[in-house]
Amino acid sequence: MPEPIEFYFDFSSPYAYFVYTKVDDLAADFGRAVTWRPYMMGAAFPRTGQKPLTEQPLRGAYAMHDWQRLARFMDMPWTLPEKFPYVALAPSRAFYWLEAQDPETAKALAKRVLHGYFGEGREMSSPEAVAGEAEALGVDPAALIAATQEPAVKDRLKQVTTDAVERGIFGSPTIVVDGEMFWGSDRLWMVKRWLKSGGW
Amino acid sequence: MPEPIEFYFDFSSPYAYFVYTKVDDLAADFGRAVTWRPYMMGAAFPRTGQKPLTEQPLRGAYAMHDWQRLARFMDMPWTLPEKFPYVALAPSRAFYWLEAQDPETAKALAKRVLHGYFGEGREMSSPEAVAGEAEALGVDPAALIAATQEPAVKDRLKQVTTDAVERGIFGSPTIVVDGEMFWGSDRLWMVKRWLKSGGW
Repeated sequence: MPEPIEFYFDFSSPYAYFVYTKVDDLAADFGRAVTWRPYMMGAAFPRTGQKPLTEQPLRGAYAMHDWQRLARFMDMPWTLPEKFPYVALAPSRAFYWLEAQDPETAKALAKRVLHGYFGEGREMSSPEAVAGEAEALGVDPAALIAATQEPAVKDRLKQVTTDAVERGIFGSPTIVVDGEMFWGSDRLWMVKRWLKSGGW
Repeated sequence: MPEPIEFYFDFSSPYAYFVYTKVDDLAADFGRAVTWRPYMMGAAFPRTGQKPLTEQPLRGAYAMHDWQRLARFMDMPWTLPEKFPYVALAPSRAFYWLEAQDPETAKALAKRVLHGYFGEGREMSSPEAVAGEAEALGVDPAALIAATQEPAVKDRLKQVTTDAVERGIFGSPTIVVDGEMFWGSDRLWMVKRWLKSGGW
C-alpha cells in the first residue's frame, strides 16, 4: 500500500477552505488515503518573512476580493467572520486529540470547522465553539474543551508544526505526495497529474 | 468593440513565462485583443513588503522546484540563467519604444525575450542582448540600444509601472479584464470563465 497523501493546512486559511472538499476525492480516484495535517502556518512566518495576507498592502485587498470571487466561481458559501485571521489553536488541538481516538471523526470535525467558519461565519477560535461542532458528531464537548489544555495535545500540535516547517512547508494548503510538495489551492491539477503518472 | 485585455508582467518573472504563450489565444476565443504591459514588478515591493522569491527562505526553494516541475508538466523548455532575477529595464524599455511604432513587433520581441531567457538561458538584462533578439525581427539594433536610454522611453516605462501599482497591481502575471484583476499563472481558468459569463 502506498503511504497516505498528506494535506497540510491552517484552519484560518481561506485557500484551505477552497480545497478541503476535494482532496479526499482526488486521492481516492488513485486508491490513496489522505492524512489531514492542520498546523500553525504562522510558525513559518519568521522564516519566510511573511505575515497574514490581510496585513499586506495591495495583496490583502486583492486576496479579499479573490476569496469572494473564488467562492462564487466554485459555488461555495462564503462569509468571513469579523475575527480574521484567527489563531487556530483550539480546532487544531481538538483535531489531534480526536485523531488519536478516531481519525474519521477528527476529519469530520475539521470539515465542520472549515465550513462553519468560512461558509457560515461562525467563529472557531474558542474551545467552546469547536466543542459545539464536535458535539454534533457525538463527541463529549467537556472532554474536548479539557483536551485542548492537555500538555500532550499541545505538544502534538507543536511537533506537527515544527516538523512541517522543518520539511519546508510554509503555506496552506500544502499537499504532499510521496515527499513531493504542492502548495496552493490551484495546484490540484498538478497533484492529479503526479498521481496519474506515478511521479513524473 | 470591448477594450483589450491587459496582460501585466515582469520580464524576469517565471510565472509570466508560463502563461505568455496562452493569453492571446484565450482572449481571441472570446473576440478580445490583448495589450501587453511589461512593468517593473519590484516597484510594488516596498508597498507589499515582498522581495524576490529566491531571496525568501522556504518559499524560494519551493519556487525553484516548482518552476522546473511546471515546465515539465507544461512541456515547455526551462533553463534559469545564472543572473536571476534580473532588473528588466532593457527589454521593458525596448518594448515600449517598439510598441509606439508597431505593437505586433513589440509583442514578438517580448515573446523572444521571455523564451530566450527562460527557455534557452540567454541573459536579457543588457540593451545589446535585447537588440540581438530584435534584430531577428528586422529591427535596427543600434536604434533599439539608443532608445533604451531615451528619457521619453524611460518615462513611459516609469509611468506604466506607477499606474500599475496605483491600480493595485503587484504581481506577475496579472491579467485585467474590464477592470477585473486576476493574479497568477494558474488563474487562466478564472479569466476564461469571466470572459465566458461576461463578468460573473
